Amino acid sequence: MNPEEFRAAAHQLVDWIADYRTRVPELPVQARVKPGEVAAQLPAAPPAAPEGFDAVLGDLDRVVVPGITQVQHPRYFGWFPSNATLSSVLGDIAASGLGALGITWQSAPALTEVEEVVVEWLRELTGLPASWRGSIQDTASSACHLALLAARERTTDYSGTRGGLQAEQAPLTVYTTEHAHSSISKAVALAGFGMDNLRLVETDPWTRAMSPKALAEAVAADVAAGKRPTAVMAGLGTTGTTAMDPLAEITRIAAEHRMWVHVDAAMAGSALLLPEMRWMIDGVEGVDSLSWNPHKWMGTVIDCALLYVADPDHLVRVMSSNPSYLRSTVDGEVTQYKDWGIPLGRRFRALKLWFQLRLDGVEAIQDRLRRDLDNARWLAEQVEAAPGWRLLAPVALQTVCMRYEPAGITDGDALDAHTLAWVDEVNASGATLITPSLLDGRWSVRVSIGAERTERSDVAAVWEVLRTAAERR
Amino acid sequence: MNPEEFRAAAHQLVDWIADYRTRVPELPVQARVKPGEVAAQLPAAPPAAPEGFDAVLGDLDRVVVPGITQVQHPRYFGWFPSNATLSSVLGDIAASGLGALGITWQSAPALTEVEEVVVEWLRELTGLPASWRGSIQDTASSACHLALLAARERTTDYSGTRGGLQAEQAPLTVYTTEHAHSSISKAVALAGFGMDNLRLVETDPWTRAMSPKALAEAVAADVAAGKRPTAVMAGLGTTGTTAMDPLAEITRIAAEHRMWVHVDAAMAGSALLLPEMRWMIDGVEGVDSLSWNPHKWMGTVIDCALLYVADPDHLVRVMSSNPSYLRSTVDGEVTQYKDWGIPLGRRFRALKLWFQLRLDGVEAIQDRLRRDLDNARWLAEQVEAAPGWRLLAPVALQTVCMRYEPAGITDGDALDAHTLAWVDEVNASGATLITPSLLDGRWSVRVSIGAERTERSDVAAVWEVLRTAAERR
Ligand SMILES: Cc1ncc(COP(=O)(O)O)c(C=O)c1O
Ligand SMILES: Cc1ncc(COP(=O)(O)O)c(C=O)c1O
Repeated sequence: MNPEEFRAAAHQLVDWIADYRTRVPELPVQARVKPGEVAAQLPAAPPAAPEGFDAVLGDLDRVVVPGITQVQHPRYFGWFPSNATLSSVLGDIAASGLGALGITWQSAPALTEVEEVVVEWLRELTGLPASWRGSIQDTASSACHLALLAARERTTDYSGTRGGLQAEQAPLTVYTTEHAHSSISKAVALAGFGMDNLRLVETDPWTRAMSPKALAEAVAADVAAGKRPTAVMAGLGTTGTTAMDPLAEITRIAAEHRMWVHVDAAMAGSALLLPEMRWMIDGVEGVDSLSWNPHKWMGTVIDCALLYVADPDHLVRVMSSNPSYLRSTVDGEVTQYKDWGIPLGRRFRALKLWFQLRLDGVEAIQDRLRRDLDNARWLAEQVEAAPGWRLLAPVALQTVCMRYEPAGITDGDALDAHTLAWVDEVNASGATLITPSLLDGRWSVRVSIGAERTERSDVAAVWEVLRTAAERR
Repeated sequence: MNPEEFRAAAHQLVDWIADYRTRVPELPVQARVKPGEVAAQLPAAPPAAPEGFDAVLGDLDRVVVPGITQVQHPRYFGWFPSNATLSSVLGDIAASGLGALGITWQSAPALTEVEEVVVEWLRELTGLPASWRGSIQDTASSACHLALLAARERTTDYSGTRGGLQAEQAPLTVYTTEHAHSSISKAVALAGFGMDNLRLVETDPWTRAMSPKALAEAVAADVAAGKRPTAVMAGLGTTGTTAMDPLAEITRIAAEHRMWVHVDAAMAGSALLLPEMRWMIDGVEGVDSLSWNPHKWMGTVIDCALLYVADPDHLVRVMSSNPSYLRSTVDGEVTQYKDWGIPLGRRFRALKLWFQLRLDGVEAIQDRLRRDLDNARWLAEQVEAAPGWRLLAPVALQTVCMRYEPAGITDGDALDAHTLAWVDEVNASGATLITPSLLDGRWSVRVSIGAERTERSDVAAVWEVLRTAAERR
């Protein structure tokens, strides 16, 4: 396809995108297709000869739009927000159009340096220590995995260069809580620690925050048993209830044992853009790494996760590679982001952050975050005031956890069946999307506020939908 | 930014992209900025208030374009091709504009099912076994890493669920060659094997292909020493010289020891679209996994790597996670790509492949690949015929490895200095970009053909540039 053919098609496509974004509120929130239904609409083999752009564009309407859950919908309250602000989309379009190749600094100096600048902007905006350095990764899952690898190698004095983890004698242990995201236990398994060496430290029954006392005890017991405590994977804004692990106390304990502290702030990181929310990172000076997802609440189109480290040397020692064909005349003077993660080739992800911050401005982003925090507090008040409804966790961020507990249902399993039934009904209706989740062994409901276009009126309307569905059963 | 503001800006942006792509041939190929020069042009803090789109667009011209090496340039012959065809860019723009969230099948059924369909199209088009299944990953580096993790877990009977690699007794060993990509040894270190347990198997001095005899001997020696041979990381199209490891013989040896065979065909995978190139995968039925990069020669805008597996169960057993908040009513009936890799949230990468295959058609892609193979053979003939020039490896794909060895220079170090001097001079001129690379301990030059717009005339012109630069020194 030549530039003029692209020009014609791209004008059609961006009009299509603008129209699509305009009509998102009219679409069902949850996709209604059945398994296999999308695939069945596509031909079994690709075309030998080119198809026209109209056919392809038509399939976006016919196949793709009905086949996705509309996370840009103002009444999307599922999982966590996954905003894709149009300002960031412009940056992403520029990245695609440029087609730059990020393998070394030399292959695209601007790809590296714009990244350095925007992650530094965001470091400052989120109040993280001035000496820290950041990078863009694809996801929080990858960022946690990288942090755990760095921790493992630091504790074993870089065993990767010798016999590897398999040559180590005393087992390495990792600490987190049952509320940590599933990517943490996955990383523990993938990094070779093994699930037997993952400790789920006790949490407070209401806040679900890690108990520092329980952490200290677990670490002491492992040390006594000849194990080597290696990392604490703390959470700010856990997926279930947005619990906040206490960093100041955790880092104090970790320091005694030279453990790595990683903070998974995938969701809560966006809130650090608000100075009044910085209480969350009290103690962050003792942390080794922290990751968060602009691709969630802040609204940088997926995928975009930030990984900050107190000392990048640990990443670089573990992940650098210098084959001769990547040599350049400036090696040693520049940042080589290939040495900060697993992928060699990198996309120009910094552009979407750069465009978003410049085109929207920081204040507008902050206003939106404050709006959502406010909406969450409002909803929590409604839940607390409504008969039969129970608020199940503190509302530290923008997620409200609740359950309707009708007087007539006293059996736990029956309550679970009731909860799942009304939630599945609400979601199937297309009016909204909320996420059922297990809390203390029972099904509950998460209403996660923060889609870009969600206003108070949407929250109020959905609260009515939930009440009606739950209470009439 | 609302849809109408986006519409206006996006029309400007796609015009800018079309214009940029038109004028790429006039730009210097290698970026000329100095370390820090790009960063110095950006403000130290982000704007509190929004900036206009014109300012941002202006910075693409002012800061970004001069700050990247033009890998879309017809005279780009560096590293490997990194084509970003405009048909695939359209698909990527659609993905950004939709802002779909790929966490489970339910969050975006079409994201999963279009991916299943296009990777199946490409499986068939590349002649891989019909029973295999594929997925899209970000890069070949990640794909190799995942394959190695699956191998490790299969050999240890899934130790990740127990004491991990650190609880294993007999050390696990991995086999590759010195010509394998640096991502292989990196994966060996990251997966906890340790570099001591990586064997660089002897290769043929001319083809640089792995010697099956040497592999068998290395494996036998390790078994005799009580080690557990776990994986062979074979290469099709190595980065240095596009060497082809012999799969039929490798898989036979691997089968005797139940070793995992992964094939890194990052570059060569595109050539499998040509039936006449399928000799490369003779023996592929015995392979466990194979990855290749549409984001290289085939031209799907970065990032896009394919990972095929003979049995996805190994990936899923190692990487699945099922927290309650990801439950849906169709679990068990659908593919959950989150269980095929590390990231939870996934971008709608399938769209760029889907758009490219449909808008360009398979035959046009095949024609372009054949053009490049032909150009490489032509250049190799010129090198062989030119006095003082030496062809250093067989031209199996589209990369020609050469050195100018003037009669007057007999000392190896002096020859190295000469080679680097003329190559750096050529690259600094902006006329083209070629990659110096160490081969058998000496600097040589790789001319890697295959940029989308490279025609015979470009190859011929660059050959003149190289001759002039090398011969006049
Ligand atoms: C607390 C937390 N950590 C990590 C993740 C994983 O995010 P990603 O999809 O970026 O891997 C999530 C996703 O929702 C999350 O909520
Ligand atoms: C043979 C080979 N394998 C792997 C890679 C790594 O590719 P990626 O950037 O997708 O990780 C490359 C990159 O050039 C390569 O040439």
